[in-house]
Amino acid sequence: MTSNSEADKSVIQLAHGGGGRMMNRLIQDVFAEAFRHPDYDNANDAALLPWQTPDMVMTTDSFVVNPLFFPGGDIGTLAVNGTVNDLAMRAARPRYLSVGFIIEEGCPVETVRRVAQSMRAAADTADVVVVTGDTKVVERGHGHGLYVNTAGVGCIEHDLRVGPRHVRPGDAIVLSGDIGRHGIAVLASREELALETPIKSDCAPLAADVLALVRAGLELHCLRDLTRGGLASGLVELSEASGLAFVLQEEAIAVDGVVAAACEVLGLSPLYVANEGRFVVFLPADQAGRAIELLAQRNPGVQPSIIGEVVDRREAVVIARSALGMERVIDMLSGEQLPRIC
Amino acid sequence: MTSNSEADKSVIQLAHGGGGRMMNRLIQDVFAEAFRHPDYDNANDAALLPWQTPDMVMTTDSFVVNPLFFPGGDIGTLAVNGTVNDLAMRAARPRYLSVGFIIEEGCPVETVRRVAQSMRAAADTADVVVVTGDTKVVERGHGHGLYVNTAGVGCIEHDLRVGPRHVRPGDAIVLSGDIGRHGIAVLASREELALETPIKSDCAPLAADVLALVRAGLELHCLRDLTRGGLASGLVELSEASGLAFVLQEEAIAVDGVVAAACEVLGLSPLYVANEGRFVVFLPADQAGRAIELLAQRNPGVQPSIIGEVVDRREAVVIARSALGMERVIDMLSGEQLPRIC
Repeated sequence: MTSNSEADKSVIQLAHGGGGRMMNRLIQDVFAEAFRHPDYDNANDAALLPWQTPDMVMTTDSFVVNPLFFPGGDIGTLAVNGTVNDLAMRAARPRYLSVGFIIEEGCPVETVRRVAQSMRAAADTADVVVVTGDTKVVERGHGHGLYVNTAGVGCIEHDLRVGPRHVRPGDAIVLSGDIGRHGIAVLASREELALETPIKSDCAPLAADVLALVRAGLELHCLRDLTRGGLASGLVELSEASGLAFVLQEEAIAVDGVVAAACEVLGLSPLYVANEGRFVVFLPADQAGRAIELLAQRNPGVQPSIIGEVVDRREAVVIARSALGMERVIDMLSGEQLPRIC
Repeated sequence: MTSNSEADKSVIQLAHGGGGRMMNRLIQDVFAEAFRHPDYDNANDAALLPWQTPDMVMTTDSFVVNPLFFPGGDIGTLAVNGTVNDLAMRAARPRYLSVGFIIEEGCPVETVRRVAQSMRAAADTADVVVVTGDTKVVERGHGHGLYVNTAGVGCIEHDLRVGPRHVRPGDAIVLSGDIGRHGIAVLASREELALETPIKSDCAPLAADVLALVRAGLELHCLRDLTRGGLASGLVELSEASGLAFVLQEEAIAVDGVVAAACEVLGLSPLYVANEGRFVVFLPADQAGRAIELLAQRNPGVQPSIIGEVVDRREAVVIARSALGMERVIDMLSGEQLPRIC
């Protein structure tokens, strides 16, 4: 006889796609195991191709968001910006995208057209070109309307190399804006929640923001967009990869009032809700002010802030300190609060 | 009131993914329309990125084959070789792959592991590196076990540029081996057909073969792998793109006896059945013998042959001539005979 929990471990669960512990374990046990290669650092969202000058970076993401259209975007804008942002998080300039559609039989052609058109608009905004594509059709009941994959290639046109191993004690952690909008926008749309004010996804391309920081001469140490698993999972991953402790000031993390209220009602913590246009940057504390100034100039209405600092506690841990000085440890969730968010 | 046929045109049908007329129309009307760009020739399976030296090529394919495992391969070998071959058909050396998994909840982890491992083995054989990846999970009933996307980047390390516009009257058309194995292997496996002798898919990486022809100094004009839609659809597409007529000698097109018998029983023409390790090459007629010699040396047991020639009939048409001299026009099918073959 097999107990339930044993059976569960041997099959894929929704939580395996959620950006938390279970997904990390699947990637380590199955994919890293199969694809490990001594010359390539393929544990990142985007891989460095040490090949030509300038250095190239390659990345991919599939998108299975439900519903396909939501306030502030659709699966197409998500598919372009998601991949553009993975390149941006290596401080690369995104150049080329490929797109693969898996369409369910019965999907309206008009839906496919709308998605393709919004991909083109998003690509133009992000200054990338969709150069090649592929279409597959699966029988009714074997898809969910439309899945989209994008892969992207970018180039690093400067000497800065960013990543978790460049994080240093004393670094400031700057968050580019308020969190939780994308997840709540998709969820509200899916569940037809009536929010006080409709929340729009924060879905946006981040490369121009990052490259503006680079051009300003700031010594960026590490960048991370806050998608599946939200701010908390992203920071826990970076803390573990760098071996350092991050101490956050909870009150410095901005959450829109409507997003906070929706999270409250739904029993979610905004720290774990997905974003598609927010990132954290680690850099020397004395440069944080300049970074905030530049980001705020570029994105009127979005308030970046210093949310914490890196400390050497001989332990890889993320700690949130409340306004009253209480500390609690932030961990990754096992799975995700919200499946099919991207 | 809307008639059935009108309603059908507005929704995606399986035939839209079949490699025939309907897929071509969807690509033209929806995707080419949305993604057209003056500087990029993105109508090919793989796009030239006129960026660095050597020139780079980028491509993508999603794989939805059913069943996941079949004689001679699985969705993983297919996903690696399919993308490697799209790069090879631009005479590029495949270098880097990305991989995106869309996994259905409930899929055994062991299945994912087997697929990842066979991707690694196929990548090693084809001398490419899987540098980055992504995993999404969809609810039970919204996938079919596992879909895999790969994107690939390669480089062109010589001055040869191949494509339909380089095809010339007088060119010989060389076919690299017998046709129909992949489609019949998958179909037999799916339908549990009892064949006399089990047919294995021809799934194989083609880049080393193509690069051997290039190294031998042959003036390749055009290359094409014969996947969805088979030999017939591939040739019709090239004929239309080049504006030239192709005249084929039917008896020169090799079909294994068991494949031919299976096609007979199933009412299929082997000309339209998918291959995953066969291609045609267009080159000056006086170089065809050398190409055949090289291909035969490299692939013992596989018999390449000259199957026809390019003629200028002021009409883009593919004609098959029987042993008795009877001529018939070969057209693309509307959809595909066999859905979910790759």
